[in-house]
Amino acid sequence: MKTLIVVSHPEIDDSQTQQFLYQGSKQKNVFWHHVEELVDIDVAKEQQLLTNADRIIFQFPLYWYSAPSGLKDWEDKVLTRNFIYGDKTYPLKDKEFGLVVTTGLPLKDFQKGAAENFSLDELMTPYRAIADKAKMQILPIFPVSQFWYKTELMQMDLLIDYQRYLTQKMPNSLNNRQAWFENKLQQLDLDADIDDKKMIELIINSFTSRIEELEQLNETLEMVKEDDES
Amino acid sequence: MKTLIVVSHPEIDDSQTQQFLYQGSKQKNVFWHHVEELVDIDVAKEQQLLTNADRIIFQFPLYWYSAPSGLKDWEDKVLTRNFIYGDKTYPLKDKEFGLVVTTGLPLKDFQKGAAENFSLDELMTPYRAIADKAKMQILPIFPVSQFWYKTELMQMDLLIDYQRYLTQKMPNSLNNRQAWFENKLQQLDLDADIDDKKMIELIINSFTSRIEELEQLNETLEMVKEDDES
Repeated sequence: MKTLIVVSHPEIDDSQTQQFLYQGSKQKNVFWHHVEELVDIDVAKEQQLLTNADRIIFQFPLYWYSAPSGLKDWEDKVLTRNFIYGDKTYPLKDKEFGLVVTTGLPLKDFQKGAAENFSLDELMTPYRAIADKAKMQILPIFPVSQFWYKTELMQMDLLIDYQRYLTQKMPNSLNNRQAWFENKLQQLDLDADIDDKKMIELIINSFTSRIEELEQLNETLEMVKEDDES
Repeated sequence: MKTLIVVSHPEIDDSQTQQFLYQGSKQKNVFWHHVEELVDIDVAKEQQLLTNADRIIFQFPLYWYSAPSGLKDWEDKVLTRNFIYGDKTYPLKDKEFGLVVTTGLPLKDFQKGAAENFSLDELMTPYRAIADKAKMQILPIFPVSQFWYKTELMQMDLLIDYQRYLTQKMPNSLNNRQAWFENKLQQLDLDADIDDKKMIELIINSFTSRIEELEQLNETLEMVKEDDES
């Protein structure tokens, strides 16, 4: 699976959040594509990038409840009517479409009655409308709020969640999470030198047995629920 | 009352709809301000334009369910945090904020279940959020859909509605509409040469007597309603 991250930030080198996410994006088959760095937008080339991807992510800081103008400029040029829906071939059909939205405000502010009074979902309506028009599958928004207030441990958690958002099979079910983590551990194994291999093997064994435990617990829980309902 | 129309269209000379609206905007105390024509955005000057206005309109064609990138660029530069809400003086407080949105699609497509599956209100959420943040009063959206499919008479109707959107006292009540039309007729009178004055006088008399008729009808209707309810 190939993932294209269309990143928009006018001062990306100064954004520690974006730099941190950039480090997280360094995975196989993940392409980081920063639109403000494009000297001239080659529409055919950009459309080819989109067509080649299986998952397309728009990633940006919230500037006036929307993406920075750089992304809108890119949209207005690259997403031609013909390409998205005009000629009825729908080249982006069934691809997954996600949004990584960074904000300096707490997430709890984005709801009716709170400081911002609108949810991120409501604010992102134009992007959902684009995805609908292109017949793409919309993923839940991945919000990154107040990154630099987070502890180092929370940041690492976020980074893993971000990596899963980029490459994990969706929906974000327990099984899909498990498969993603197993795959990651096996990749570690391949890259490691002989000294580390034994340790990784132990981790995988422990991880696998925990999954088996979890599966058994889930089965038991299902049975208890059925008993309760009958 | 002063009205500022912040217009965004990258090819405004080719847009017959915008040219038509431009003609309609030629009223006293209405300022047409086309952002793509600004060679360099002078932030202080733009903020002064906003501060001087009583009603601020954003006017644009719908490009990917939002304004063209030119307006977003203007927003990102002009609407600084300090200006809008940062220093708590709220210079745009209580000003009216409207949106004139032009689209080549029929208005009926903009609703759940229809071709576009989102309402214009939903799509315009980011602008409402900006208005909220600045403590402005939000006016209902003024949509201009499929302008060139309209008959000449419908276009003229639309132009009058547009002029009212720019300068009529809100809300758009019967009384406020009446006052606006009376004022317009009186202005005609001042500008006309003597030959036309008699005709205009007759129109005003007829108009005024119709308003009196309407008022009497409304009073009767109110009494009927009260009887029904009691």
